Amino acid sequence: MDSRRGFLQKFILPAITLPFLPVSGWAKAPFSTQQTPQGPVLRVAIMGLGGYGTRVADAMQACKNAKLVGVISGTPSKIKAWQAKYGIPEKNCYNYENYHQIKNNPDIDVVYVITPNALHRDHVIGAAKAGKHVICEKPMAINAKQGQEMVDACKQAKVKLLVGYRMHFEPRTLEVIKMRNNGEFGKIRFFQGLCGFKAGDPNQWRLNKELAGGGALMDIGIYALNGARYMVGEEPVWVTAQETKTDPVKFKEGVDETIQFQLGFPSGAVASCLSTYSMNNLDRFFLNGDKGFAEMQPSTGYGPIEGRTHKGPLTQPVVTHQTVQMDEMAGIILEGKQPLVPVDGEEGLRDLKIIDAIYQSVKSGQKIKLQV
Amino acid sequence: MDSRRGFLQKFILPAITLPFLPVSGWAKAPFSTQQTPQGPVLRVAIMGLGGYGTRVADAMQACKNAKLVGVISGTPSKIKAWQAKYGIPEKNCYNYENYHQIKNNPDIDVVYVITPNALHRDHVIGAAKAGKHVICEKPMAINAKQGQEMVDACKQAKVKLLVGYRMHFEPRTLEVIKMRNNGEFGKIRFFQGLCGFKAGDPNQWRLNKELAGGGALMDIGIYALNGARYMVGEEPVWVTAQETKTDPVKFKEGVDETIQFQLGFPSGAVASCLSTYSMNNLDRFFLNGDKGFAEMQPSTGYGPIEGRTHKGPLTQPVVTHQTVQMDEMAGIILEGKQPLVPVDGEEGLRDLKIIDAIYQSVKSGQKIKLQV
Repeated sequence: MDSRRGFLQKFILPAITLPFLPVSGWAKAPFSTQQTPQGPVLRVAIMGLGGYGTRVADAMQACKNAKLVGVISGTPSKIKAWQAKYGIPEKNCYNYENYHQIKNNPDIDVVYVITPNALHRDHVIGAAKAGKHVICEKPMAINAKQGQEMVDACKQAKVKLLVGYRMHFEPRTLEVIKMRNNGEFGKIRFFQGLCGFKAGDPNQWRLNKELAGGGALMDIGIYALNGARYMVGEEPVWVTAQETKTDPVKFKEGVDETIQFQLGFPSGAVASCLSTYSMNNLDRFFLNGDKGFAEMQPSTGYGPIEGRTHKGPLTQPVVTHQTVQMDEMAGIILEGKQPLVPVDGEEGLRDLKIIDAIYQSVKSGQKIKLQV
Repeated sequence: MDSRRGFLQKFILPAITLPFLPVSGWAKAPFSTQQTPQGPVLRVAIMGLGGYGTRVADAMQACKNAKLVGVISGTPSKIKAWQAKYGIPEKNCYNYENYHQIKNNPDIDVVYVITPNALHRDHVIGAAKAGKHVICEKPMAINAKQGQEMVDACKQAKVKLLVGYRMHFEPRTLEVIKMRNNGEFGKIRFFQGLCGFKAGDPNQWRLNKELAGGGALMDIGIYALNGARYMVGEEPVWVTAQETKTDPVKFKEGVDETIQFQLGFPSGAVASCLSTYSMNNLDRFFLNGDKGFAEMQPSTGYGPIEGRTHKGPLTQPVVTHQTVQMDEMAGIILEGKQPLVPVDGEEGLRDLKIIDAIYQSVKSGQKIKLQV
């Protein structure tokens, strides 16, 4: 898509189209694949125009029921670029000083907060106080205390708070969850989630404790944790965790490189998880029950998710996760639909409570009892 | 093989052969597939004629350099059956009262102890004192203290002590180890070993603390532990462990049903292991390095071992593990050959030290430092 846009910009648009269309118009035309809506359309402003924000914006071009209509950013040049690329009108563009005025903008339904983790709390609460529903990227915050404040603020403001758990809408993941609910795996005994990659740029915000609130666990380990919960289908009652650091220069105090953690569930099922910023090839889920199993690899990457169960390969449609997520979230926010796996603030808060306990267990070396 | 023997016994032998041959002779003829030796032949007496002893005896019929020549058992009917099946002369048959007389038998080189775990110490020391080399089935004993006594006793008696680690001779396992030694996986980062099955008969000796010395960890979890060591290629420096019990009737006090344990290695590599008597489909190894990976499933079952690396499937020959083990052990005992992965008493003792620490960590909830 990038190279196609580059080609269009260089050779066609300056000569022919530019004189007749505003910048925000021409860019949208070749890029958008917007579908005919099937129900009310959720009008979304994205806050934070970084790499993942761009991924969401691109994916939304194929949405049926959600539409990117606004942006909030501290970088004017990014706003200009997004206006051009996605056809966003000037009146829907905000910065961090004036975004509270979004309250007076009837053309925006929801703010999707995609800023660094440590800023989520203030940004979500700010959007809620402006009377807008909020979608917050995971992790919802950097600890459970913040998460609770966010849940409370959204409740008080009477707006919905959702967390960007894209896997909760991924067809092959949902198929495994449905099979589990149908008893096709029998009694669930074991889940294993190995999630990690080698973190690149040492100067990225994800390796800055102040902005990230932690390290790999906050960013990628949370997929194993959240996955353990939606794959086993229970809430854990204990956790133990062990940290290993091989590169203390890159992964400074408070920024975890590798954490192994284990969860115990009320049924007696157990989970074994790995969160790491220093290994390749780690995107693996394995769910084991008395009657069968599921294994997925990749399990939480952007796709396609590949996997099989004891009955054979998972063959559900390959989708762009964020496209499906935003269409489904439109139904949740505008029509009160209930997803199979929750994506609300309470769901995000449960992960934060367990993350708190994982860091606590790393420090104390003790098994931590959980009440989530 | 069984049905072939059945056929031979019913229709041919009674009429023709039986009058002319002693029982021990005719049975050996149709059963044995003994190969032409390539070097000195190790003459083996098996102590303990249970299920696994029978498996070893059957596998030995195809050995080139090892030969089953004697038995030690407390059950006269079993001795008779083995004499008939494997052609074992009366003079090489012992019971637990008189087996020390094996000292005076020049036709036996080694005693392979395949009795319940808690009896290994006395049986190994007994055989050593009778001047025979000893092969001891894993786990070598029920704790490191016993293991040390066995190592010391064999050293004092100037006999060799080997442990029945059949995987140390399995061609596909060895291929992965060789690839690691050649640096083909790069820096090793992670090993995962999931080893378990559903324990059947609640009255089997393996579920009796007095005889087994523990539960799943002693019997099947040791494969994950030993595998972690030979796959990572280092000795662990710490271990943490968590126990889960869902069936305290079947798995009584001191008999572990499910234990998760984690190991840390000097290089910073970590291992995540599962030992269980209550799950199916658990025979999986995964080794992950900076440049590549290996995965095996089944990884430690009787075979065939199946697996692949980042370079493609493992295609080394499928072998009967115990056949290769005994041929290789003949070379180690009689010719002083050095295996790629050790199988001596010290190797068995290292696993016992870590097993002790795993049980200690389960009890204390603490990370245990290791010196193995």
